[in-house]
Amino acid sequence: MTESFDAVDVIRTKRDGGELSDAQIAWVIDAYVRQVVAEEQMAALAMAILLRGMNRREIASWTAAMIASGERMDFSSLPRPTSDKHSTGGVGDKITLPLAPLVAVFDVAVPQLSGRGLGHTGGTLDKLESIPGWRAALSNEEMMAQLADVGAVICQAGSGLAPADRRLYALRDVTGTVEAIPLIASSIMSKKIAEGTASLVLDVKVGSGAFMKDIDAARELARTMVDLGTDAGVDTRALLTDMSTPLGLTVGNALEVRESVEVLAGGGPADVVDLTLALAREMLDAAGRPDADPAAALADGRAMDAWRRMIEAQGGDADAELPVGRESHVVTAPADGVLTRLDALGVGVAAWRLGAGRARREDEVQAGAGIELHAKPGGAVRAGQPLMTLWTDTPERFERALEALDGAAVVGGPEDVARPAGDGATGVVLERIA
Amino acid sequence: MTESFDAVDVIRTKRDGGELSDAQIAWVIDAYVRQVVAEEQMAALAMAILLRGMNRREIASWTAAMIASGERMDFSSLPRPTSDKHSTGGVGDKITLPLAPLVAVFDVAVPQLSGRGLGHTGGTLDKLESIPGWRAALSNEEMMAQLADVGAVICQAGSGLAPADRRLYALRDVTGTVEAIPLIASSIMSKKIAEGTASLVLDVKVGSGAFMKDIDAARELARTMVDLGTDAGVDTRALLTDMSTPLGLTVGNALEVRESVEVLAGGGPADVVDLTLALAREMLDAAGRPDADPAAALADGRAMDAWRRMIEAQGGDADAELPVGRESHVVTAPADGVLTRLDALGVGVAAWRLGAGRARREDEVQAGAGIELHAKPGGAVRAGQPLMTLWTDTPERFERALEALDGAAVVGGPEDVARPAGDGATGVVLERIA
Repeated sequence: MTESFDAVDVIRTKRDGGELSDAQIAWVIDAYVRQVVAEEQMAALAMAILLRGMNRREIASWTAAMIASGERMDFSSLPRPTSDKHSTGGVGDKITLPLAPLVAVFDVAVPQLSGRGLGHTGGTLDKLESIPGWRAALSNEEMMAQLADVGAVICQAGSGLAPADRRLYALRDVTGTVEAIPLIASSIMSKKIAEGTASLVLDVKVGSGAFMKDIDAARELARTMVDLGTDAGVDTRALLTDMSTPLGLTVGNALEVRESVEVLAGGGPADVVDLTLALAREMLDAAGRPDADPAAALADGRAMDAWRRMIEAQGGDADAELPVGRESHVVTAPADGVLTRLDALGVGVAAWRLGAGRARREDEVQAGAGIELHAKPGGAVRAGQPLMTLWTDTPERFERALEALDGAAVVGGPEDVARPAGDGATGVVLERIA
Repeated sequence: MTESFDAVDVIRTKRDGGELSDAQIAWVIDAYVRQVVAEEQMAALAMAILLRGMNRREIASWTAAMIASGERMDFSSLPRPTSDKHSTGGVGDKITLPLAPLVAVFDVAVPQLSGRGLGHTGGTLDKLESIPGWRAALSNEEMMAQLADVGAVICQAGSGLAPADRRLYALRDVTGTVEAIPLIASSIMSKKIAEGTASLVLDVKVGSGAFMKDIDAARELARTMVDLGTDAGVDTRALLTDMSTPLGLTVGNALEVRESVEVLAGGGPADVVDLTLALAREMLDAAGRPDADPAAALADGRAMDAWRRMIEAQGGDADAELPVGRESHVVTAPADGVLTRLDALGVGVAAWRLGAGRARREDEVQAGAGIELHAKPGGAVRAGQPLMTLWTDTPERFERALEALDGAAVVGGPEDVARPAGDGATGVVLERIA
């Protein structure tokens, strides 16, 4: 880093709608990490970026600077291709659990560096930690050994990848600048590129339970991330998928593991199976396995075998009983009719309040807390029939969980069933962007 | 302050182009002063305000919140009306010095709470401090007594008026958010309204040596401030005046005092006299003295008498010799012709570098440093004739001062004389806004 800039000049350039040079971007991220650029200066810059945007070159340069703030991993010594998946986060989104072992069946290495949940969307590590003995923290050597041996690993991302992102994200969180698409895209992609995967499939969620509420913003985010990955030499594709209603019939940590195991056993809810297969086909295609048949691997037990090896390699007991919440409460249908709406956000917040998620990073989650759904939108219901069962270890939480569900489940006539946001799509996958 | 808000919600509202409520604005300023709203949050909000703007109600509310952060003064016990003047700052702008005593001649109280200079525009207090014995710091009681007795006072603004502005200005300075017109207007007007003047005349400078380089921005700022003052019950008018070239023939502290005394003695450069009289007429009209004849008071010595009383009331010796820079350097005309351009910014920066101004708040200024001009734009010059004389106590400063003057003085044909920015105006006053 030889060239130096004035922070106010950099801010003014973006504020006035100009383009930042690669050298300015490299300087400002590095200077921010060195605390030469102050928090308030980065906050003003982030707001200017949110309102003025960045072009493809600027976003690529910003992402490269974030990557340069930390370490890079290298999977090129593995004897098989690597493919990774990233979801922008949804309610009941347990797809990583069946997907990683399913793709590994076809001799593809799947390095899933995951996080814990914060807010109403659950975290993959929180879900897997409901399996007795399973551990999330692996050394780089352990991770590489498991990728070579089992093919699939889901573990905690180390703090060494794009550390500038950690500080910038915390700043954006308190300054109303989370929603800047260039910054969201570079935050996600800097970690994925630094991780060193050869290909990547993005699951960009759209709808009430997702970060992106409307499809235009989701499409822009997906396009930005696909361009970023492509420019960095990663084969990157994206699916826009519906998050107006929860995925599957379970929301909560152990509950979602149980449903994932059903999918791996060849069963499970249709939307979870469909999305798992759609993402698996993209990953396999990107990894040079276009003829692989993932549906067969779910049906014949090969995916389940890979799951068991993956869980056991990380100390988990794949046969152990999973925790169940100590107390339950059943919500019933108020009338005969069709369930016209089952709002992802309401269900997500309710599960979170039951103890499935955390409000602050230092909180613990309850493995058994969450919600089982007994009906999905479009399904016929009768008055008094159970719509969902709420589980928690701490029954004083039912009241606030039920508040979150107020208005979330609507029974009406068949003509009132809400449609997902895609162009005439009826399934969970709305659009593909590559 | 009973209602409380979430800082991120407030930032998001403005970010997305919405209007902030009066309660949101009152909360955010108060919370910023209490350090509940962090610097980085205010920086993001300031950038959102700069890019999204604020409407008249929001600006008035923001200004009221700044005023509420500190004390208010009250001149209503004085037996005469009050009128104040504020200039947005220019090169050679010594107008306050002759103006305050001139207006006081007509039984109007002129409370000029002033500041020191920072950057290339000089500060009124720095100029007056070149008078031996004169002191800038008065207690509120001393100020009131002088207003009752002499009528005019030019003194240091206390730190009690709109203290939120001090912190916000320092933040804007490092975050590229100085240029937000709503924030500039509320910064200036909060102090003037808190000061309690009944009427106010704004001198909004336009041109290279001014903060506002173009007339459209200057007009918007003037209109915003006039509206703010009017809404707060202060009779407020504005003149847009030319700052493409320095005012008068002197730039520097003692040099400008000397020129001010010439004006008070009935002489002085035409542009300084014209602007002094134009501003005096506005102040007198606003104070209910529409028939006053300030030109007569300059000609017959009454203004000079008021000046002497004002200076002596603050300990100054009105008859003392004024300091002169120890070293001088003459810049001569390169050719015969007409001085087509004498750039205010170049001259201002050169005087600053000679020691007339300060780069940091803690710097000292040289009383005798500065520039005397021997020609003004439009004037005929001969090759080798002196164009200006530079003065300093520290001759090693000549080199960088001359660098600032490079290209600032241009000799050409009469057809090349630059025109000021106003609509066909030829004098220093370009437009009037009331």
